[in-house]
Amino acid sequence: MALESDSKRTVPRAGALTAEKLAADFRSVRGRSEALAAPLSPEDSSAQSMADASPTKWHLAHTTWFFETFVLEGSEPGYRAFDSSYRTLFNSYYNSVGDQYPRPQRGLLTRPGLAQILEYRERIDEGILRRLEEDLFSPELLNIVELGLHHEEQHQELILTDLLHLLAINPQRPGYRLDLAEPETSELAPLTWHPGAEGIQSIGHPGIGFCFDNEGPQHETLVAPHFLASRLVSNLEYQEFMQDGGYSRPELWLAEGWALCQEENWRAPLYWQEAEAGWKAFGLAGMGPVIPSEPVSHISFFEADAYARWADARLPLETEWELSAKEPVPEDNLADADRLRPQSLNSQPGSGPYQLFGDVWEWTQSPYQAYPGYRPGPGALGEYNGKFMSNQYVLRGGSCVTPRRHIRSTYRNFFPAHARWQWSGLRLAKDA
Amino acid sequence: MALESDSKRTVPRAGALTAEKLAADFRSVRGRSEALAAPLSPEDSSAQSMADASPTKWHLAHTTWFFETFVLEGSEPGYRAFDSSYRTLFNSYYNSVGDQYPRPQRGLLTRPGLAQILEYRERIDEGILRRLEEDLFSPELLNIVELGLHHEEQHQELILTDLLHLLAINPQRPGYRLDLAEPETSELAPLTWHPGAEGIQSIGHPGIGFCFDNEGPQHETLVAPHFLASRLVSNLEYQEFMQDGGYSRPELWLAEGWALCQEENWRAPLYWQEAEAGWKAFGLAGMGPVIPSEPVSHISFFEADAYARWADARLPLETEWELSAKEPVPEDNLADADRLRPQSLNSQPGSGPYQLFGDVWEWTQSPYQAYPGYRPGPGALGEYNGKFMSNQYVLRGGSCVTPRRHIRSTYRNFFPAHARWQWSGLRLAKDA
Amino acid sequence: MALESDSKRTVPRAGALTAEKLAADFRSVRGRSEALAAPLSPEDSSAQSMADASPTKWHLAHTTWFFETFVLEGSEPGYRAFDSSYRTLFNSYYNSVGDQYPRPQRGLLTRPGLAQILEYRERIDEGILRRLEEDLFSPELLNIVELGLHHEEQHQELILTDLLHLLAINPQRPGYRLDLAEPETSELAPLTWHPGAEGIQSIGHPGIGFCFDNEGPQHETLVAPHFLASRLVSNLEYQEFMQDGGYSRPELWLAEGWALCQEENWRAPLYWQEAEAGWKAFGLAGMGPVIPSEPVSHISFFEADAYARWADARLPLETEWELSAKEPVPEDNLADADRLRPQSLNSQPGSGPYQLFGDVWEWTQSPYQAYPGYRPGPGALGEYNGKFMSNQYVLRGGSCVTPRRHIRSTYRNFFPAHARWQWSGLRLAKDA
Amino acid sequence: MALESDSKRTVPRAGALTAEKLAADFRSVRGRSEALAAPLSPEDSSAQSMADASPTKWHLAHTTWFFETFVLEGSEPGYRAFDSSYRTLFNSYYNSVGDQYPRPQRGLLTRPGLAQILEYRERIDEGILRRLEEDLFSPELLNIVELGLHHEEQHQELILTDLLHLLAINPQRPGYRLDLAEPETSELAPLTWHPGAEGIQSIGHPGIGFCFDNEGPQHETLVAPHFLASRLVSNLEYQEFMQDGGYSRPELWLAEGWALCQEENWRAPLYWQEAEAGWKAFGLAGMGPVIPSEPVSHISFFEADAYARWADARLPLETEWELSAKEPVPEDNLADADRLRPQSLNSQPGSGPYQLFGDVWEWTQSPYQAYPGYRPGPGALGEYNGKFMSNQYVLRGGSCVTPRRHIRSTYRNFFPAHARWQWSGLRLAKDA
Repeated sequence: MALESDSKRTVPRAGALTAEKLAADFRSVRGRSEALAAPLSPEDSSAQSMADASPTKWHLAHTTWFFETFVLEGSEPGYRAFDSSYRTLFNSYYNSVGDQYPRPQRGLLTRPGLAQILEYRERIDEGILRRLEEDLFSPELLNIVELGLHHEEQHQELILTDLLHLLAINPQRPGYRLDLAEPETSELAPLTWHPGAEGIQSIGHPGIGFCFDNEGPQHETLVAPHFLASRLVSNLEYQEFMQDGGYSRPELWLAEGWALCQEENWRAPLYWQEAEAGWKAFGLAGMGPVIPSEPVSHISFFEADAYARWADARLPLETEWELSAKEPVPEDNLADADRLRPQSLNSQPGSGPYQLFGDVWEWTQSPYQAYPGYRPGPGALGEYNGKFMSNQYVLRGGSCVTPRRHIRSTYRNFFPAHARWQWSGLRLAKDA
Repeated sequence: MALESDSKRTVPRAGALTAEKLAADFRSVRGRSEALAAPLSPEDSSAQSMADASPTKWHLAHTTWFFETFVLEGSEPGYRAFDSSYRTLFNSYYNSVGDQYPRPQRGLLTRPGLAQILEYRERIDEGILRRLEEDLFSPELLNIVELGLHHEEQHQELILTDLLHLLAINPQRPGYRLDLAEPETSELAPLTWHPGAEGIQSIGHPGIGFCFDNEGPQHETLVAPHFLASRLVSNLEYQEFMQDGGYSRPELWLAEGWALCQEENWRAPLYWQEAEAGWKAFGLAGMGPVIPSEPVSHISFFEADAYARWADARLPLETEWELSAKEPVPEDNLADADRLRPQSLNSQPGSGPYQLFGDVWEWTQSPYQAYPGYRPGPGALGEYNGKFMSNQYVLRGGSCVTPRRHIRSTYRNFFPAHARWQWSGLRLAKDA
Repeated sequence: MALESDSKRTVPRAGALTAEKLAADFRSVRGRSEALAAPLSPEDSSAQSMADASPTKWHLAHTTWFFETFVLEGSEPGYRAFDSSYRTLFNSYYNSVGDQYPRPQRGLLTRPGLAQILEYRERIDEGILRRLEEDLFSPELLNIVELGLHHEEQHQELILTDLLHLLAINPQRPGYRLDLAEPETSELAPLTWHPGAEGIQSIGHPGIGFCFDNEGPQHETLVAPHFLASRLVSNLEYQEFMQDGGYSRPELWLAEGWALCQEENWRAPLYWQEAEAGWKAFGLAGMGPVIPSEPVSHISFFEADAYARWADARLPLETEWELSAKEPVPEDNLADADRLRPQSLNSQPGSGPYQLFGDVWEWTQSPYQAYPGYRPGPGALGEYNGKFMSNQYVLRGGSCVTPRRHIRSTYRNFFPAHARWQWSGLRLAKDA
Repeated sequence: MALESDSKRTVPRAGALTAEKLAADFRSVRGRSEALAAPLSPEDSSAQSMADASPTKWHLAHTTWFFETFVLEGSEPGYRAFDSSYRTLFNSYYNSVGDQYPRPQRGLLTRPGLAQILEYRERIDEGILRRLEEDLFSPELLNIVELGLHHEEQHQELILTDLLHLLAINPQRPGYRLDLAEPETSELAPLTWHPGAEGIQSIGHPGIGFCFDNEGPQHETLVAPHFLASRLVSNLEYQEFMQDGGYSRPELWLAEGWALCQEENWRAPLYWQEAEAGWKAFGLAGMGPVIPSEPVSHISFFEADAYARWADARLPLETEWELSAKEPVPEDNLADADRLRPQSLNSQPGSGPYQLFGDVWEWTQSPYQAYPGYRPGPGALGEYNGKFMSNQYVLRGGSCVTPRRHIRSTYRNFFPAHARWQWSGLRLAKDA
């Protein structure tokens, strides 16, 4: 995702988007954000552990600002803002809307407090829901409401991602939730290789249903013969890489990654800590053992790339990934809140690659670029995605903290190559 | 004060320090800290606006840690800590006690939260008060309890000082308290010059009653003939300096100050902001007009020094200041909470310098050094003061946020020459 | 190019590489490096203006180190080094060879001095030439000699590039050579649009003759319908962009570029300076007027991209560029030394895009990635190119300081998006 | 010394300053600067190893600029500068003269080169000498010529000081001169304690003969009973401190020094390096053994202070030092060029403290402040000293690279507490 992480925009595409359906989705999605924040104290919700992360409280306000600015303000002339200072305070990166409060100082905005932001949410929700119920919005505004819900789902993932980073700084290593199920080690199926589709292939979103603008236009591409690994690289395998000197052999690394590895003294994935009895990892349930069968997570593009080179393989191209990921996304019977770690419950060995959705984001070797023919829309929402298309890499799939509804095969997530605070891992590929 | 701002230590000196009197003081001082924090939300109490400042919540915990570590732990073998992680989390800078949580990250410690810290205070207070009431403490421990109260008073000033800095970052410029009296402009008495004592003079604390170790030993010093200004430099006078190019004429500045002035683009005291109708200033009551008759405040040593050079005068030596400041500190009938800006109520023109106590801290030209014969005490409390005696300047007097009980003529406050976030101003001196 | 700028490697490919032909090339290429340094004083040759640049003296030594390390050491066991400390001092980035002297401190290596480095060159040249004349090298070593010459040509371009940056820091703005021809403004042919090849096309080096490893393997790719501009964007056109607010309209920029533009206060190409009579530019002949008909130069990828967006066009893909660039590279009758600014002498309007070779490097929108099937070779020379394939963009063509022999249509130059100190400009493209 | 290190000014004081005598001194002092630079290559003379240091070439030009700007320009209206750009290029810090070329980039000024600067020197020397010989200067200008010579002597010390720092960065560790005498270990006389003068004492320069303005006014001060160590702390003793954990025990350090020690990983004096056979040190003759009997050198104020605390002593006050240092400075028969390391040849045990002059600068505990009644002169030369009087400490004595003529008992050198690149050591003191 973009630095600001709210960087996906939809071009209105048609479809049976009814106000009634949207109202139900609106209630559900908005409520889920508040549920995610429920275990947090006002202090937890207000701190910012680094410039790339934001306080939970800020996420809650910014997603609301999105609806107020792009829907309510757009829906009636003379709309009176809940608080005029919010226009700047909770604008993430939309230059067309105006100035922005400096990102690295979001944690210093102690006011408005959590309670007042929840009140803000309530007020805006009332405004949106009343107009949805009375069917007052134009189709274009309905599209923006839908976009706002997908935008909010992106921030739901960020709330958990940023929070894990914050809690990890506390030497007490407090868990976000202490009622989560104990992880279990399971048998690891042997990794097998599967040939992917080749020749001229069509990729990108077909335009039926919602997508972000960067998922299109659908277009043809030429795919070389290749194989994809059946499953993700596991913690067990990643530890073999570590034991084989993975973090001390420059020949395995891109030059830029090696410099960073030295400078920041990387020796393991971000939240791992060496203990007498072996490696432990910090997660939303607190510190716990590294589970060998789980996919490795919280690694940068550089680490993923080095692992692949060590394994005599390479990272997949995003097109290779997309072609192998046949929808629909498999069902599971877990509530989002019970997921919160890469458990791979729904992903079983089959005839092709599995573990594609909902475990960890998968780094690809594809720089994040526009698809041929892509043009960002006009106005502020044109800033959603396109302006972040430099020096980032595409990740595919979706992680255990990605809302289930939000996962699809054409989805293009993106982060700079050094980023490690997401649930990001890798799947191997190789030339045929 | 030291970076950590709890940097004064007492050498036990005797005196009628009864447990009963101490228990009353203890209740009063500890209660006042909580009263200061009462207008704050948990979010307000938890944020840290720069590495030199600390969250209110941290101040509340650290002052409690002081009593737990140096009194309760010292009073009984096998004492069981309230929470063993606090030993590190709330240790400011005592290497003898052990490791310290990194200072610039105090604002990221969302847990323990404010409520839990108030509980911590309650528990430790019970422990101290019970033992005081049962008269269980040795004279040495009684001395440390007394030191702990003065230590807490220093942190009370820091709570307000750090908070003002934090609130100033919020573009809404929220006031700490909105019920404070409106400031009034008063007539400014003309500045007059008063000869000070000269020749061999005795300075430093005489050793009767409490003082910090850096106030002694009392000793003789040779004082040259000089004059001290009757009162502090006012906002009106400081604006004349500004209008006369004070911030753009390098010949008025020390080289180091000039470089900083350029680099940080100083044009006025820290919290001043230019508006159409003239300068405004941010204070604990929010934004308001600059009151011409009030002493200028929130200036660095470099600005004070440049002003003095512009005025064809100089900053006083700390000995000159001390000799002119006859005790007792004049009474006023204000509650501390009603003071909170430099109002000069108690300081009326008389036969000598006035406005010496309780308006703003006065920069002197004296580097903060040990008095002849000074030796820090043994053990952890020996770290209170001595180790900060480099690259800082002495300030004298006391400000409107200094607890009244805490002000005395021998008191030596100290800050680096660039510091501006205290209520710091100046009084002129010149050679006779 | 890579940070180290010597990042292209050849896989030995066969061919009629005779020792005799190589000896002649060796004399010519090596001599040209010394000729480039001839106008410089020892002081000029020794300074380093930023971490990304290197002193001329260092370039002269490093290219020699390349021959000593990879050819002479490889050619005879027990080879005795000219100076064993050079192994570290002049190793750019080859981890397989051993440690490297810290890059940002190359300008502090006052010893060996220029004279001693010229002596080093002489000694190594003798060693290489003697063995070539006696035909003692294996085919593999002959290949490495050839690679070393191309490597040296890359450094010849860097010598001038880094030197311009250094001289620009001197307020006297001294020219590198004062005997260069006065530039003349010429008529600017109107920009026209030319359709490129589309569908499945073959790109990459065919493998006959020398190329760097990153130019292959030759492979097929799918090209969408598109147009390429007939010529480069001129200084005149770029000034229109500037006058139209190009540097102050965030909607034209990638987010990362906009942040940088603000932070570094970009207002024009790197070496431009506003004077009363209009813009001037610093070049190898010193300060002079901006010539309207010359191609704009010394702009970053971000500026090129913003210009293209402003012009309602886009940057070309590297494949689009390569397909349009038919060889052979047109001849001109200029000595390299007389070129030294983008004069476009050899590039005349014709039936297709022109100005493709030898004016300025052209930014493409293609991130620098491996071609399908690319694998770096084994050993130290495998570090030449592959490890720099992250967060850089491909530039195509060649500039006025690129040795003529070094220019070809498959050549892939690369720099980070912020780099501006090369002769880099742009050509527009758009979708058909 | 000041950051710029040319920070001492004289108030004209009268005296028998004849043009004839000055001309002889001028020839001698100016010639010595060139002799110091003689062993250096143009490359050596041009590099700058850190912002606090300057290239030799720059020192040679700046001292010449001083004579041109303050003497020649002052002596005749319409004086035509040697090169008008030099006014800015070689202005160190005189705001009254105009802008200054940025200090950290002095090493990037490859032009004018060394040869041209020597030509500049020659031309200015002719101008000065001709006017001296014709006795054309006013008494005030004669005073400035004399000041300029002392200024140049300060820069002679800096040339060697900055050069050592530069050469130390080269892994070859080249010596400045290879013809220096081998150092010999001598017997170390036991350290004895000597009572100093006490009560009211007069210090500061009496005003007969040359001094810098900061050495006066002479004034009375009150001195407490104390002892001074007979000699400097030796390398042997300093190694005992190291072996006793001197660099790992925070209780020995000022807080600021301890933080720096951790951050920069100090384990020994600046140029020491641990080898198998014990510690070695880098000096002007290259790497060599640490000589146990030599005074320790290249330590910061913080290290000196920590050593003194470890030794249960303290650093002297500058007044204590000055009172013990009876002139005349003892003679020796060494040429300056043969000194170049702290050999203590002229300093023999006697009835009081010895080793006071010409070994290493001695850190005192006195912050660098104005003496009572000090006022800088008017105009540019008033910037020489006064503006550096903050956050620096006074050093007394003079080192082995201080020109002999330049040493006197009232001389006040000054550096920030962290500085280590001078020949700086310490002598112990204690309270009586």
